[in-house]
This record gives sequence, structure tokens and C-alpha cells, in this order.
Amino acid sequence: MSEDPKPKQMCVKVDRFYQIIGKKWSGPIIHTLLDKPKRFSEIHNYIPDLSKRMLNERMKELEQSGIIVRNVISERPVRIEYSLTRKGHELAEALNQMESWANKWL
Amino acid sequence: MSEDPKPKQMCVKVDRFYQIIGKKWSGPIIHTLLDKPKRFSEIHNYIPDLSKRMLNERMKELEQSGIIVRNVISERPVRIEYSLTRKGHELAEALNQMESWANKWL
Repeated sequence: MSEDPKPKQMCVKVDRFYQIIGKKWSGPIIHTLLDKPKRFSEIHNYIPDLSKRMLNERMKELEQSGIIVRNVISERPVRIEYSLTRKGHELAEALNQMESWANKWL
Repeated sequence: MSEDPKPKQMCVKVDRFYQIIGKKWSGPIIHTLLDKPKRFSEIHNYIPDLSKRMLNERMKELEQSGIIVRNVISERPVRIEYSLTRKGHELAEALNQMESWANKWL
């Protein structure tokens, strides 16, 4: 918006945005969790082109950024699921917009 | 979306998206043009932290990507203005979503 008085400050935030979700596969990982929490293996099944090692790395980064959360469910055997935080859910909406554009125009 | 069957293909498009608008200052440049076409100097006034040389480079890239268009208006003296294409206008909407998220959460 031309009425935004702080393009530089906005730029810093957008840079941080890219640092978080600009990494390859972060978008698909977030999307995978949009409908419901999933186990690591379920996420991997959805994105088989991504190695388990790389998926693990991205999951840790997204957890550190507060986008996803790791839930330990005390069943027997213990079940571990990943879900989006509120921050992550709202991000997914922004990603959808971005991807619709990419789908239409690229 | 978990029903999207082609995360890899989507990933390629999202990578191209980042290549286009992931560069520093591309977002603010696009935003500057959102309300109406502007001359180079007007865009530069809005983003003074950006050197004219760098602004020129970004403008050329955005023109090549079909996001902005350079209009030569046959007045005396000739006036040159830049405006968003339809592709660029729709991108601005996606950027707004992304920036709202960044503003709220980062």
C-alpha cells in the first residue's frame, strides 16, 4: 500500500517470512497438516520426493518457528503427531493465496 | 491441501514465485504501484532506502516477469510511468495476505 509509511520495516518482516517458509518443501509440509494432525510417516507419504532426513530437518525448523507443534499422545504404544499452531493455520491461508496465484500465472 | 496430488509440481511453481518476488524490495515496489501508476522518481521517493541503480534492476526484472509494465505517454516532454499488469495486481493481493501474517506474527 502506498499509504504504508514503513516499507523498510515491512521488508525486514518479509525477509523473515521467506527465511521461515521460503525453504524448499516448507509449503507442502504446512499444507499436509492443514486438514488434521498427522504422524511423521503420514507426512512423508504425502511428499515422497522429500527424504526423511530432510523432512525431519524442516519439521524441526517449523517447530522452532512456532508454525507446527509436536504432540505426544499417551497411548500404548505412544503416538506422536504433528499439528499446525494458530500461527501455522493462518500462514496456510496466506500460502493458499500465493499458490493460487502461482497456479494461475506461472 | 492434503487432496492436492502434486506437491512436487506445486513446489516448482512456488520456487519460481520466490525467484520473482522473493528478492529484497520487490514487495514494496509492487505495493507502491497498487493504487495507481507511478514514475520512476515517485517510486524511488517511496522507498528511499533502495538505491536508484538497484530499483532500476528490480523494475527490469519485474517487467520481464510480466508483473509491471512501462508506459510511454506521448506528452511533451514524454512521460514514462510504470503500472501493474493484471498478473501484478493479483500478486499484490497475495502479498497483502502474506504481509498481514508477517505483521501479526513476526
